[in-house]
Amino acid sequence: MPAPLGRVVEMLSTLPGVGPKTAMRLGLNLLSRPASETVALADALKLLHEQVGFCDICGCFAEKGLCQQCDDPAREGDTVCIVEQPVDVLMMERGHNYRGHYHVLHGRLSPVDGVGPEELNLAALDRRVEAGIKELILATSATVDGEATAHYIARRYRDAGVRISRIARGVPEGGELEYLDEHTLSRALDQRISWDNGSI
Amino acid sequence: MPAPLGRVVEMLSTLPGVGPKTAMRLGLNLLSRPASETVALADALKLLHEQVGFCDICGCFAEKGLCQQCDDPAREGDTVCIVEQPVDVLMMERGHNYRGHYHVLHGRLSPVDGVGPEELNLAALDRRVEAGIKELILATSATVDGEATAHYIARRYRDAGVRISRIARGVPEGGELEYLDEHTLSRALDQRISWDNGSI
Repeated sequence: MPAPLGRVVEMLSTLPGVGPKTAMRLGLNLLSRPASETVALADALKLLHEQVGFCDICGCFAEKGLCQQCDDPAREGDTVCIVEQPVDVLMMERGHNYRGHYHVLHGRLSPVDGVGPEELNLAALDRRVEAGIKELILATSATVDGEATAHYIARRYRDAGVRISRIARGVPEGGELEYLDEHTLSRALDQRISWDNGSI
Repeated sequence: MPAPLGRVVEMLSTLPGVGPKTAMRLGLNLLSRPASETVALADALKLLHEQVGFCDICGCFAEKGLCQQCDDPAREGDTVCIVEQPVDVLMMERGHNYRGHYHVLHGRLSPVDGVGPEELNLAALDRRVEAGIKELILATSATVDGEATAHYIARRYRDAGVRISRIARGVPEGGELEYLDEHTLSRALDQRISWDNGSI
């Protein structure tokens, strides 16, 4: 294999879900398509880190100092949804029903990996809470570590005079009971809500 | 999503086997790893088309004028294995038992897609056959189009005083009869070879 192709294949194989065979197929595809397309991809990759950074306020992806959400005066600044990663903000925004701000932790508590509160983006959250926030929505993941992180944050701000909530857990949309795990089903039963005609 | 990330994701999703979701995962990974790694991939991609071209003789990948095989005086120049794509040469070379040269067609006959003999790298092969070759090994794929291409080339050079052969077809290594299609099995039976103790 020519060395320049080998280098591309080797680097592509470090991407998540891309093994040596897939990397080879991608490398050959990039070599066989018009040179201009491959150069365009290279240019876009070069600009990625140059142009995309993190929001000064919430830690989400931002092209300038502030992200789209923090820069939007129409959004409710006194409601802050706490997520683990910048990508989680993109997922939340797909729903179109949240109009508040975000705060990205850039991780979750994980004693095994040596991630404690100091490793998370919490000092900035302290300042936001002090400056005045009505509600903190805990939207960390529904994993053991995500749950521990939610508990930690709820305790950290319990006397800060802020309402704290956790996103609901239960049967996902389209979920069939037959294929759900027992923990999800058991929690969905525990946290059942009254059938109020018209509201659900 | 920040526009620079959107551009990378859009371009990645044009790669084979990469859908919008995978492209998103790859794009986010490239954004979250150290900038130097993403820039290194961009640099390697820029050099790909600049440094890798096709061999002047056989049409395989080559960094300079000639590919590794055509540039190797130890290989048998009077045996030429005909393949469809440059990647097929890489696959053949994995076997380590072929010591001849190659000729890459850069395609195969496909009337449906408007690919006729003029679209294939055959004029160069004519010149190689005229200059003197002992054997042409047809290693086009075992598909309808690959088979048609092999037939066409065999007819094209039938009076050129060159031995023409086709790579064997049959049960692949490790193949269990239970899972083989009937065409492969039927051909393996038709083309059975005598059990000569010691030779097989």
